[in-house]
Amino acid sequence: MLYDNLDTTGGRLIFAGADTVALAEKYGTPLYLMDEEKIRANCRAYRTALDACVCPGSSAIYASKACSFAGIYKIIAEEGLGADVVSAGEIYTAKKAGFPMERAYFQGNNKTDADIRFAIDAGVGYFVCDNFEEIDALDRIAEEAGIKQKILIRVTPGIDPHTYAAVATGKVDSKFGIAVETGQALEAARLAVSKKNLVFEGIHCHVGSMVFDSDVFIRAADVMLGLMAEIKNKLGHELKILDLGGGYGVGYYDGQGKIDIPANIRAVAEHVGEAAKRLGIETPSLRLEPGRSIVADAGITLYTVGSVKKITGYKNYVSIDGGMTDNPRYALYQSKYTVVTANKTDAKDTITADLVGRCCESGDIVQPEVSFPADIARGDTVAVLTTGAYNYSMASNYNRIPRPPIVMISNGADRLAVKRESLDDLILNDII
Amino acid sequence: MLYDNLDTTGGRLIFAGADTVALAEKYGTPLYLMDEEKIRANCRAYRTALDACVCPGSSAIYASKACSFAGIYKIIAEEGLGADVVSAGEIYTAKKAGFPMERAYFQGNNKTDADIRFAIDAGVGYFVCDNFEEIDALDRIAEEAGIKQKILIRVTPGIDPHTYAAVATGKVDSKFGIAVETGQALEAARLAVSKKNLVFEGIHCHVGSMVFDSDVFIRAADVMLGLMAEIKNKLGHELKILDLGGGYGVGYYDGQGKIDIPANIRAVAEHVGEAAKRLGIETPSLRLEPGRSIVADAGITLYTVGSVKKITGYKNYVSIDGGMTDNPRYALYQSKYTVVTANKTDAKDTITADLVGRCCESGDIVQPEVSFPADIARGDTVAVLTTGAYNYSMASNYNRIPRPPIVMISNGADRLAVKRESLDDLILNDII
Repeated sequence: MLYDNLDTTGGRLIFAGADTVALAEKYGTPLYLMDEEKIRANCRAYRTALDACVCPGSSAIYASKACSFAGIYKIIAEEGLGADVVSAGEIYTAKKAGFPMERAYFQGNNKTDADIRFAIDAGVGYFVCDNFEEIDALDRIAEEAGIKQKILIRVTPGIDPHTYAAVATGKVDSKFGIAVETGQALEAARLAVSKKNLVFEGIHCHVGSMVFDSDVFIRAADVMLGLMAEIKNKLGHELKILDLGGGYGVGYYDGQGKIDIPANIRAVAEHVGEAAKRLGIETPSLRLEPGRSIVADAGITLYTVGSVKKITGYKNYVSIDGGMTDNPRYALYQSKYTVVTANKTDAKDTITADLVGRCCESGDIVQPEVSFPADIARGDTVAVLTTGAYNYSMASNYNRIPRPPIVMISNGADRLAVKRESLDDLILNDII
Repeated sequence: MLYDNLDTTGGRLIFAGADTVALAEKYGTPLYLMDEEKIRANCRAYRTALDACVCPGSSAIYASKACSFAGIYKIIAEEGLGADVVSAGEIYTAKKAGFPMERAYFQGNNKTDADIRFAIDAGVGYFVCDNFEEIDALDRIAEEAGIKQKILIRVTPGIDPHTYAAVATGKVDSKFGIAVETGQALEAARLAVSKKNLVFEGIHCHVGSMVFDSDVFIRAADVMLGLMAEIKNKLGHELKILDLGGGYGVGYYDGQGKIDIPANIRAVAEHVGEAAKRLGIETPSLRLEPGRSIVADAGITLYTVGSVKKITGYKNYVSIDGGMTDNPRYALYQSKYTVVTANKTDAKDTITADLVGRCCESGDIVQPEVSFPADIARGDTVAVLTTGAYNYSMASNYNRIPRPPIVMISNGADRLAVKRESLDDLILNDII
């Protein structure tokens, strides 16, 4: 199978040592399952590689937008990672979970004054400033609060990561950050250096997602280090932190690209160390911001089949009790997934059907052209693999469908991490 | 302007007689506004046309997935429409709002046994059965409940509505309904007639959305009436209801297609009356299921600008405090919208920029290449028009961003219809 936490040899899909069919029965479907050991192992792979690398004080920051709920911040905190937060909502959730907020990095291309005040009150360690307006507003609000706020500045290095458009963010033409090429990044640095209530410690970039190309981070680092040298030479300001963002790819299906993340981190760090020496600047401490590669392969989603439609001369459809409401990624990006009939893993997959959701919307497709056993029928359990990232976090209540719970599996034992939404939750804010 | 409830002549956008800039100040942004009079007028246009048409007992059913919250079901009930509901959540909301459930039609391609029980308990008037499994399950559960359940059967007439793929549902190859062309629809009718606990009253189809082509419903009606005649002739069962679904298009921008809905309803009804006579069946009573055309032009969304980015030699970006979380339609379908700078309607729009959301996602674009005043800046109010349908109902908490409130405007007076989500709402189901 795709990952070592999956086993289909006994007629049923076993995930993280737990029987998925029994869990579907126990908690109902749709159901998100997460493998705590896998999350921890993914965190440790980053931590070990960064601790051992040649850039002193380097660390990984979990991009929590990939999957944000209280329980995940506890795990991330225990594994020694920082947390990338993008809203007051993520800050609030992390803080409620007891996350050490000095390890939080506040990202985002539009922080309102209210957001900035909220984040300062919460004690967020770093703001990653995205634009000139934010630098001005943050300096003003930090002064009101009587604090000095540590910041990084987000810049766009002009790197094309060879990934698809919706996840490419490091190009010059981006809603995120400030362009290096146009000289605007240097101007933003000049503004930051001039601000009395800001402590300007480093620069950040994020080249994109689903990166399998091993030289992308090296190419980005070269542009970033050049900017760091320019800031030192022209502004007399030496930066300590080089944040290269996230983006390592994850396998959603057999035969997809692969990248050895620890080896790539070592190579990037060595390159950064040598280049810094050549440029005459201090070797910066690295930050990496993995999201998908921490949680994607730690999650699967279980569904129950409601109808199997065989339209003579056309196509087959298998309808499940979830869909774009709990996983909008096919609707948004035509994302590929691997699908397993969890209660019939011994059967040969001999028919092809589109796996479709229950929403009243033609675009509610989870995955087209999936292989199923010929006898797939109402009541069967279907698992979609590698759903740990950008599923729960992107879920909606479209069609007033409650969002599924998250059950965490730890050493074979299951526990509820997020409860299923109730019908009363759906009308919580309706004035009746 | 696009609709008669919009006025930009006084320097500020007035919507439904209310000053949008003042409302943005009062309720904060992002903010959904809805125009109650417009909703009611849209309902009446359908009701008047259907009451006057040649098919006796015809009526309109609001496809509530377009925008579902308690307050809307009250308005719809008062205007004499039925409600199309697609989940236990929509049924629960309608019932809490006091909607007369005998006027509810339960749609959907995958109703679980639990859904069926819930809907029967709620007293839903009609099930629109989508597939064979549902007919079997509903008959069994109706028997357990000791009731006779009225049903329609959803069929696919094989009509291409000349609309885009994500909203085309009437073709033979669809996840919805049962194909007429393959003979499977007749088999489903045979099954329904055989069920002791089902009262099989009619057939339903839905050819698609954003239909501007005036003959689409007539072409669909011809196929449907042919099937009704076949069911009478072969099964000896006369049907009373012909439900042609929804799909009339709505204008999102100047110069888009238009369709005169009341005139089209008259034409369709006359055609149905004549064709029924020719086929030797009773003239059926019509059902139409408008969603978008009831609420789309009754809604706008207000945002506050956070940053204006002018990337020398590339592009401009205006970032707002909402985006794909409250309106995912551009991300999903590249939908077009009209945008107005609500506090600067007197200014000439001389710069072009992409209007982008605050999510940490490149795909979070509300509308590309929008014209703005040259001095647009942080703090300005931007309105996106025609957002009454498929915005609130499709909203998510991606990036843990709370969903905006809905403020209803009635004769110029504003009232809260749905409260803004709080940060505590976001962690309501998190086990901490």
